[in-house]
Amino acid sequence: MKVVCIGSGNVATHLANALKAKGVDLIQIWSRDLANASELAKNTNSVAISNLDEIDRSADLYIVAVKDDAIASVSDSLREINGLVVHTSGATSIDALSALKNYGVLYPLQTFSKAKPIDFANVPLCIEASNVHTLEVLRSVADMLSSPVYEVDSEKRKILHLAAVFACNFVNHLYTLSDKIVEHFELDFEMLKPLIMETALKVQTELPINVQTGPAVRDDEQTMIKHQVLLNGMPELKEIYQTLSKSIKKTHL
Amino acid sequence: MKVVCIGSGNVATHLANALKAKGVDLIQIWSRDLANASELAKNTNSVAISNLDEIDRSADLYIVAVKDDAIASVSDSLREINGLVVHTSGATSIDALSALKNYGVLYPLQTFSKAKPIDFANVPLCIEASNVHTLEVLRSVADMLSSPVYEVDSEKRKILHLAAVFACNFVNHLYTLSDKIVEHFELDFEMLKPLIMETALKVQTELPINVQTGPAVRDDEQTMIKHQVLLNGMPELKEIYQTLSKSIKKTHL
Repeated sequence: MKVVCIGSGNVATHLANALKAKGVDLIQIWSRDLANASELAKNTNSVAISNLDEIDRSADLYIVAVKDDAIASVSDSLREINGLVVHTSGATSIDALSALKNYGVLYPLQTFSKAKPIDFANVPLCIEASNVHTLEVLRSVADMLSSPVYEVDSEKRKILHLAAVFACNFVNHLYTLSDKIVEHFELDFEMLKPLIMETALKVQTELPINVQTGPAVRDDEQTMIKHQVLLNGMPELKEIYQTLSKSIKKTHL
Repeated sequence: MKVVCIGSGNVATHLANALKAKGVDLIQIWSRDLANASELAKNTNSVAISNLDEIDRSADLYIVAVKDDAIASVSDSLREINGLVVHTSGATSIDALSALKNYGVLYPLQTFSKAKPIDFANVPLCIEASNVHTLEVLRSVADMLSSPVYEVDSEKRKILHLAAVFACNFVNHLYTLSDKIVEHFELDFEMLKPLIMETALKVQTELPINVQTGPAVRDDEQTMIKHQVLLNGMPELKEIYQTLSKSIKKTHL
């Protein structure tokens, strides 16, 4: 299988590396910035390009892992291609590629950082395709990566993307705020790490609604008042404290 | 070492089980509800009591793991005891026990569920004591459990407790909301579990502020608007979406 990777960001990097490790022939890496393309091309024994006109028209699979608002313009430059073109965006409809012959979506429901390697066996791949054959190709890619695979249409993928904002992006921001609190009072974020791990581990086997703890779910007003006093100098954190505590009470009481 | 455990909730249960496993002689378990005390006593080869007057006065250590607002009344019934009395509360000052002879705090910075066993090697124990000898006793208890130990005074412990609300209680509530979103649209929470694990794993080695992802940190207004449209039928979640996105932008942009 000959693959062209369009993009060199977090998703592109991890997908390209994972495919390369499975013996896929990664023939080109495109990035607007040739230096970025070159870095990923070097690691995957591929060829870096920065001009969309240079894209090889003979590949079997084109992975478009660019910013959402760049998908349309990339798609324009891939017209008349016979291979399968997929984007990797959670928030973008499959229709963004509908001018193409064979198209689909390969959305990895995971958070990627360049620095941290990731095992694709732990990355749910959400696939959608313009036709049955294309769907089978995407299934075989997922199988090759040993990833759990889910067939998800564009409407439902948007929902997953939204749920991921709550379960990952907002969660990470709460980690940032807890770090801000301990730093502000000269304590060490290190102390919170086991708690963070255990909180995530717990919901691997239990439903989160069944393992809620803390002052809000106990309706412990005294503690909540004390906490808000501590946050007097941090009005933004106080607002978040109040909004989330109110929501916990509404959910549980 | 002879220990009396006062309380039979999550913290009491895990501490009592961990101490028993290390060969500590757990002589009594007290709970207001004798059935609860009996259950824990059975598992730890101890004696259940439900009357504070029955507490053995000869123990070396009394662990008061009851609700915050019950600590004062329990403390009253332990006057004149020579052994060390500690409470386990993050939000309560050591002064709540100041009428006693030897007292302190043993605050495990972790979330406990009855159903899930926990390795105390991953539980930071925050200790504070009324005198140097008492502090040494608490250090030896932490060492016995192989727990990382931190000497933390009452003011700083309150801060840690507050930070834990953000890093654990609020995080778990966001998991609950993400589950609510996927359930509402007939998707499976299972799909989000690898993302939840990876998000927690990432901050074990990186500072959370350095690994923030998602539409808010990219200032991707189009996606944020689409997400809010999806939340039109869930005003409470929409408010949380807006509050947290605003805070992410304020932190990063």
